[in-house]
Amino acid sequence: MHFTSNILKNYFTVILFLSGSFLFAQSHKKPNVIVIYTDDQGAIDLGCYGADDIYSPNIDKLAKEGTRFTQAYVAAPVCAPSRAALLTGRYPQNAELTGNTSAEEGSSGLPAEQHTLAELFRDNGYATGHIGKWHLGMNEASSPNGQGFDYSFGHLRGCIDNYSHFFYWEGPNIHDLYENGKEVFYDGQYFPDLASDKAIDYVKDHKDEPFFMYYAINMPHYPYQPTQKWRDYYKNVEQPRADYAAFISTIDERIGFLMDTLENLGIRENTIIIYQSDNGYSTETRAFGGGGNAGPYRGAKSSLFEGGIRLPTIISWKNNLPENVVNNQFLMNIDWMPTLANLCKLNKIETQIDGIDLSKMIENPKKATERNSGFWKYGKQWVVRKGNWKLIGFPKDTSNKGELNLEEDALFLSNLDEDVSEMVNLASKYPEKVKELTQVFLAWEHGHEEDIPKKVERITNLATNGTIKASTGLHQKYNDANLLIDGKLGYTDYASGQWIGQEGKNLEFIIDLNSIKTIKSVSVNSLINSGNWIFPVNAMEVSFSDDGVKFNSSKDVKREENKTKTENTTEKLTINVDKSSRFIKIKVEGIGNCPKGHPGAGFPAWFFIDEIIVE
Amino acid sequence: MHFTSNILKNYFTVILFLSGSFLFAQSHKKPNVIVIYTDDQGAIDLGCYGADDIYSPNIDKLAKEGTRFTQAYVAAPVCAPSRAALLTGRYPQNAELTGNTSAEEGSSGLPAEQHTLAELFRDNGYATGHIGKWHLGMNEASSPNGQGFDYSFGHLRGCIDNYSHFFYWEGPNIHDLYENGKEVFYDGQYFPDLASDKAIDYVKDHKDEPFFMYYAINMPHYPYQPTQKWRDYYKNVEQPRADYAAFISTIDERIGFLMDTLENLGIRENTIIIYQSDNGYSTETRAFGGGGNAGPYRGAKSSLFEGGIRLPTIISWKNNLPENVVNNQFLMNIDWMPTLANLCKLNKIETQIDGIDLSKMIENPKKATERNSGFWKYGKQWVVRKGNWKLIGFPKDTSNKGELNLEEDALFLSNLDEDVSEMVNLASKYPEKVKELTQVFLAWEHGHEEDIPKKVERITNLATNGTIKASTGLHQKYNDANLLIDGKLGYTDYASGQWIGQEGKNLEFIIDLNSIKTIKSVSVNSLINSGNWIFPVNAMEVSFSDDGVKFNSSKDVKREENKTKTENTTEKLTINVDKSSRFIKIKVEGIGNCPKGHPGAGFPAWFFIDEIIVE
Repeated sequence: MHFTSNILKNYFTVILFLSGSFLFAQSHKKPNVIVIYTDDQGAIDLGCYGADDIYSPNIDKLAKEGTRFTQAYVAAPVCAPSRAALLTGRYPQNAELTGNTSAEEGSSGLPAEQHTLAELFRDNGYATGHIGKWHLGMNEASSPNGQGFDYSFGHLRGCIDNYSHFFYWEGPNIHDLYENGKEVFYDGQYFPDLASDKAIDYVKDHKDEPFFMYYAINMPHYPYQPTQKWRDYYKNVEQPRADYAAFISTIDERIGFLMDTLENLGIRENTIIIYQSDNGYSTETRAFGGGGNAGPYRGAKSSLFEGGIRLPTIISWKNNLPENVVNNQFLMNIDWMPTLANLCKLNKIETQIDGIDLSKMIENPKKATERNSGFWKYGKQWVVRKGNWKLIGFPKDTSNKGELNLEEDALFLSNLDEDVSEMVNLASKYPEKVKELTQVFLAWEHGHEEDIPKKVERITNLATNGTIKASTGLHQKYNDANLLIDGKLGYTDYASGQWIGQEGKNLEFIIDLNSIKTIKSVSVNSLINSGNWIFPVNAMEVSFSDDGVKFNSSKDVKREENKTKTENTTEKLTINVDKSSRFIKIKVEGIGNCPKGHPGAGFPAWFFIDEIIVE
Repeated sequence: MHFTSNILKNYFTVILFLSGSFLFAQSHKKPNVIVIYTDDQGAIDLGCYGADDIYSPNIDKLAKEGTRFTQAYVAAPVCAPSRAALLTGRYPQNAELTGNTSAEEGSSGLPAEQHTLAELFRDNGYATGHIGKWHLGMNEASSPNGQGFDYSFGHLRGCIDNYSHFFYWEGPNIHDLYENGKEVFYDGQYFPDLASDKAIDYVKDHKDEPFFMYYAINMPHYPYQPTQKWRDYYKNVEQPRADYAAFISTIDERIGFLMDTLENLGIRENTIIIYQSDNGYSTETRAFGGGGNAGPYRGAKSSLFEGGIRLPTIISWKNNLPENVVNNQFLMNIDWMPTLANLCKLNKIETQIDGIDLSKMIENPKKATERNSGFWKYGKQWVVRKGNWKLIGFPKDTSNKGELNLEEDALFLSNLDEDVSEMVNLASKYPEKVKELTQVFLAWEHGHEEDIPKKVERITNLATNGTIKASTGLHQKYNDANLLIDGKLGYTDYASGQWIGQEGKNLEFIIDLNSIKTIKSVSVNSLINSGNWIFPVNAMEVSFSDDGVKFNSSKDVKREENKTKTENTTEKLTINVDKSSRFIKIKVEGIGNCPKGHPGAGFPAWFFIDEIIVE
């Protein structure tokens, strides 16, 4: 009877010690907690965060009635590990969930042994409810009910159609709506409204007992399906921003419904509300490549630049925590567990967590944050932040705000105080700082020697001492021909700054070796990434000249049809020659249009080359 | 004023010649035509076609009020070319659309020059309406309005979510609902009801003029989204059959609404109704691998066996065409254009078509069909049917009802009179018939010498004269170990009957070369088809023995990580040895579970091998 005795104990404690003025409404019991966690919402995508094209009066009001953070982070740049971190107070590595979970029936997710916010609150006598998205596993142990929620309503697999509640990542096309583990059908009903209604019902049903509600709003995650009212409101805005912004206003309107309910029930002042986005806005194809806005920040979903992880975050506890505050201090979503535990006077957390109780800094914004450092690791990328210094290993910029050079930017250093945009890499300027932060990272339990970037692969290329010049137009973005003869092979990322790209058209270059040399072969190395409409070079032609004017002895080669190819690898097309020459003219052909069966069928395909190798 | 004069001419003709009893209602004008074309409906998936687990009273009644065909075909086993053939009266090759169209905005489909049923009827003074699925192109020229329809309501890209009307084949997630080329939103409204309402409105709006309505019902194509009423009805049926059957009843109910409308408007007897499915039921992953039923027929969607192309087909023209007839004669969907033109007394069709006017055989079922032969070509597969003989080149059985041997079954002959199931290949029994039909096919304008199967690739394998025995359990289906040393490489289709497969577990074989031989290498050739959860062999170990008991000199090899691989190819894993031995033990390992990121992540992966090559 642990449950009851806790309630009673707290009840009496409060009765005995609180002054009369606090004895109204629910003030005799522990505060309720609502954690609103939105999905793929960009770093400044709220009116109160500076998005003057977005109408979000209710969330802006929430910020006014509490603290709005400008340096609040999530511990991962994608959904599942971000949520795992939020719910466990641990880095994803310690929560044992570092990537998105599978949609397969019965597949595992957040391990049962992990201790969640729901379990913490439940063990402290709270009712615990989950409304909305789950995405933390498909077996019973990792389900909402298995992870400490008494009540759950929502979808389990990551994203759904908001009307049919089908999960469409790939086949089979699966209906994905559950209430306490039982499949339920609400055909055609708008999920944001269903979830809003369930959240409101939950609050009403539990108004007389302390409750913890995890309200995981599945917007503005694709598919972009705002209501007609908000589509109309943004009808003069360009797509996909219009639908995205309309989706944010669709969220905001429903937050308003919830706030009205709390007010009407008289429990607004006894309810702590946290609002946060799970990761940056999506630049995926399913999201039309964007729609969101990270403002001054570089990066988006899946990136460890600020835009992927530094997100709209609000805490509001009317009449109990400061109001109308903009707090610029460092905080992570893993800190909510100990912070809430303190604010709610819960029993000591028995499990080991990575989060830090920041309630002092929230109660008194002038007090410095106790979080001085933070760690991130997602795929190849990693980050250590210490104070205002941030070091990224193998950075990835899904927002494509600037170029990244594989070699020079493999370690990317910023001082966030001075350059919040992370556009200029300070690594070469402050090698000692890089060294220091690298050590800090390596001292972290999940920082390993093999995470530290090594030198780029150098290759032998007769052309490295020569010059190169394009004799056709280059793409406006991927146009630095010198990269083609720098003797370095980049990593397989067309946006890494090591690649020359062209869409639909061919490219032609003339290489001057500076003197007549014996040439055995000429090769072109190209990238394969059909998801980004990038196909390997299809044909190549070389010819030679001693004067750079008259070219002859032309040889060509065509890519073998049916040649095996895999994504995110490179392929070399080689012409063997036996020739002494000073100038080489190289014509490189892509496949033209995307092939049949490809989503881009009939539209121009890309090719990317990173080195023309003369041997 | 072509339009008006035609109407007037016909009006007077009818007035002058028809007897008084035909002068009621609309009998003074040309008959209306409604072509109902369903989507992925299996060959027997209606009560009247023998599916006793399906409730379809309205369509069954339609069959009673007309002719139900048992040998009616569509000219292609997938959506777009089947529709192109229906609408042009031409084989897909002549309609210039042989595969499914792209979903890309602006991409082409059915060429503008093609003359459609809609253009034919429009030029004969009819109102022309399209309701439902299009899937014949995304540019203006190939749009419904561009192809002769005065009115169009529906989705353009092939399949949609029935509540949000989003196309989800892959990203971006696109809303896909249009009325006369203009995007329209009916958020959350059930598309089958929207389409049914639009069809009923169309009929009501045009009750006083002749109309042609192409009612392209998008069911039971996935996503399986029947109404709750029908889900409940089939609640004791196993999935996915339950949802599929419920979807058919959902169709049937709406056909009932339309028939009631025709009755109430008094135009039932002046309306010719054709009902047909566009291709066999789907066995795709998105359809949970099935749900439909082809009864006695082999094959399903994408296959040229009967199950893919021989489909439920009804024509009903009450009081004008025979009723309660089951017609067993040969007919193709390309025949509807000339047949309807005759029944409706339209002007002569000016374009060259492949269809044959079969109105005589429909008016008098005792009269023999004028269609004696038919041709199909889809991908590598092709068919010629002449009389009751059917020859398939490179058959593919998407229903997996039986095995196909690449070599023996590359030409598959059936006598449909005697074996409608096409389970026994008569090609070797009737070589003269094969020869004759091959000649008929080659005489067809789209039958080419390179379509005729050549001999299977033979390879040198020291083991071909030996014997092989599995020392581990084999899969219950893919278990003929002798195929592994037959010296033939099959084509890259795990179901071709040339492959040994295993799921999750490893395989081990012992080959007896019959005498001690010098062995240079042992290779295993495996298939790559991750869509079917098939991954290349990951590791292999060989050991040798002279007595078949004591094995030693074990050598092993592991697949290179990050090795390039592409779908539907094969990969060889080789161990080089230099050894004289009689017995070889070969252990073959798959990857175990499907890798992270794959939809089957964490679940057993398959591998398929087709030859163990000893050199």
